[in-house]
Amino acid sequence: MSDVVIVGSMALDSVKTPFGEVDRVVGGAAVYASMAASLLSATQVVGVVGDDFPQHALDLLSERGADLAGVTRIPGGRSFYWAGEYGYDLGDRETLATELNVFADFDPILPDAYCDSRYCFLANIQPQVQLAVVEQLHDTCFVMCDTMNLWIETQREALLEVLSRVDLALLNDAEARQLAGTPNLAQAAEMVLDMGPEFVVIKKGEYGATLVSRDDYFSIPSYPLPNVVDPTGAGDSFAGGMVGFLARRNECCSRELRRAVAFGTVIASACVEDFSVTGLTGLGNGELRRRYEVLREIVRFEAMEWGDLDSPQ
Amino acid sequence: MSDVVIVGSMALDSVKTPFGEVDRVVGGAAVYASMAASLLSATQVVGVVGDDFPQHALDLLSERGADLAGVTRIPGGRSFYWAGEYGYDLGDRETLATELNVFADFDPILPDAYCDSRYCFLANIQPQVQLAVVEQLHDTCFVMCDTMNLWIETQREALLEVLSRVDLALLNDAEARQLAGTPNLAQAAEMVLDMGPEFVVIKKGEYGATLVSRDDYFSIPSYPLPNVVDPTGAGDSFAGGMVGFLARRNECCSRELRRAVAFGTVIASACVEDFSVTGLTGLGNGELRRRYEVLREIVRFEAMEWGDLDSPQ
Repeated sequence: MSDVVIVGSMALDSVKTPFGEVDRVVGGAAVYASMAASLLSATQVVGVVGDDFPQHALDLLSERGADLAGVTRIPGGRSFYWAGEYGYDLGDRETLATELNVFADFDPILPDAYCDSRYCFLANIQPQVQLAVVEQLHDTCFVMCDTMNLWIETQREALLEVLSRVDLALLNDAEARQLAGTPNLAQAAEMVLDMGPEFVVIKKGEYGATLVSRDDYFSIPSYPLPNVVDPTGAGDSFAGGMVGFLARRNECCSRELRRAVAFGTVIASACVEDFSVTGLTGLGNGELRRRYEVLREIVRFEAMEWGDLDSPQ
Repeated sequence: MSDVVIVGSMALDSVKTPFGEVDRVVGGAAVYASMAASLLSATQVVGVVGDDFPQHALDLLSERGADLAGVTRIPGGRSFYWAGEYGYDLGDRETLATELNVFADFDPILPDAYCDSRYCFLANIQPQVQLAVVEQLHDTCFVMCDTMNLWIETQREALLEVLSRVDLALLNDAEARQLAGTPNLAQAAEMVLDMGPEFVVIKKGEYGATLVSRDDYFSIPSYPLPNVVDPTGAGDSFAGGMVGFLARRNECCSRELRRAVAFGTVIASACVEDFSVTGLTGLGNGELRRRYEVLREIVRFEAMEWGDLDSPQ
């Protein structure tokens, strides 16, 4: 098993969905991803928080074995704050407030012990900051990156530089279309591969995820849930689950990447069943296994004995 | 192998997509579904056309072994006409014109030979007309029905009567949400099962399809295509492929229904690669098999040796 470095936002979120509302709860991409990854691997977290970030959330990560040497608390500072509201089918969300606060000056310096880690997830941050992290990592590190529509629009050159340096790019379907400039997702994935990464994962929310490389194409639906409460953090839990699994297996062949996407899917399903990281903290090893096996069964259909189709009708 | 009755519109369509434009080409739910079903089974078509419906399209169906005794040509009448335009990502379409013409008085009378068929697909028509067909079928017939948002809104009672009489209901995701009154698709599927059918299939366009019954849940992505030209008829090709496969196997257990969804997925993929029924007419047996096997590989991920997850990190 190898170590995983996770870099990104650590936040307080106010979220409203048709199923409830929470105020200033623990969130942020690095928090979700670290909670997810630490289910499977030793995780090293890089982020910045203010005085207002609750110690119990950091303790929770520590209890799961996460190394918080890369987390800086700024005295007198306030944590990144995001407020948003989801519509009826949880597909679209409206951002009501974004306060960068201490995250505005986030300059991730990796503790020495992190620099030799074999796996890294760069959550959605400005591409220049992602690049600064890549510079600190060993060349052999398997690096996954996320991004967002804002950087595709406003920081395209820096983002392309990031993509040329990472091993796997995570994008949602709209971002993949926007980045590639084509509405066709199969085409878009190919075009993102041309930008550098060996693997592209397209996240489709409740419709699942697709993994594409030059010689593999894998696609699965999401884990079916009768009660989705809050999709916040689903993508980061997915990515954290993926990278945590890869680090645990310490192998990045198609077989393990496919399994990693399935683990990410299952871990994201636990995330969205409650607000904040509550769903993730409640996910036990037994339930993780059970959902993985259920997901395998959900997509299974049998081979044909083709002789039957040859016979005349 | 059993016979399949297919009832629905036979139309002329004018379609514009970002990839081209066609004027008054052959279309209609029954035409797409019959073309698809006749790849696998003996198909009996019930529909109505005007003088303007091209004979070559009927000949094409005949050549595939479809029985057209249930197709009425109204002298002096004009065929159902639909015009529509698709947006950038082919997800949304705008209807520019709908002229029911001879379809306005569609009163499907099944030829005697059709009434003992074991499989039937009722494409999207007014629920009362679907009911009139159900009345003519034998009780043991496995009936699949489609519908649309208009009937959910305006003919709910009649639609509920249809649902209480059929074996399998096909809905797209928006229709399932609308019919069940819940944004959650897993919940919506359960609620549609409560309305009567033993199986519900939720069509999600490029995101795949999900099959739900009381004791089964199956979900697969769509077949990936670098060049989608026109989504018109995809859902009907999918349904036709499903019912044609079930009739060929003459078995409706979960194993065959899962395979039927996979066949429907593959056949729909051929449909959307060209305008009108061109993609379907070009689909050979070899390509059908190849895509079925590719789809199986696309969703495959391996079981875990769980012992590894038990060891301490």
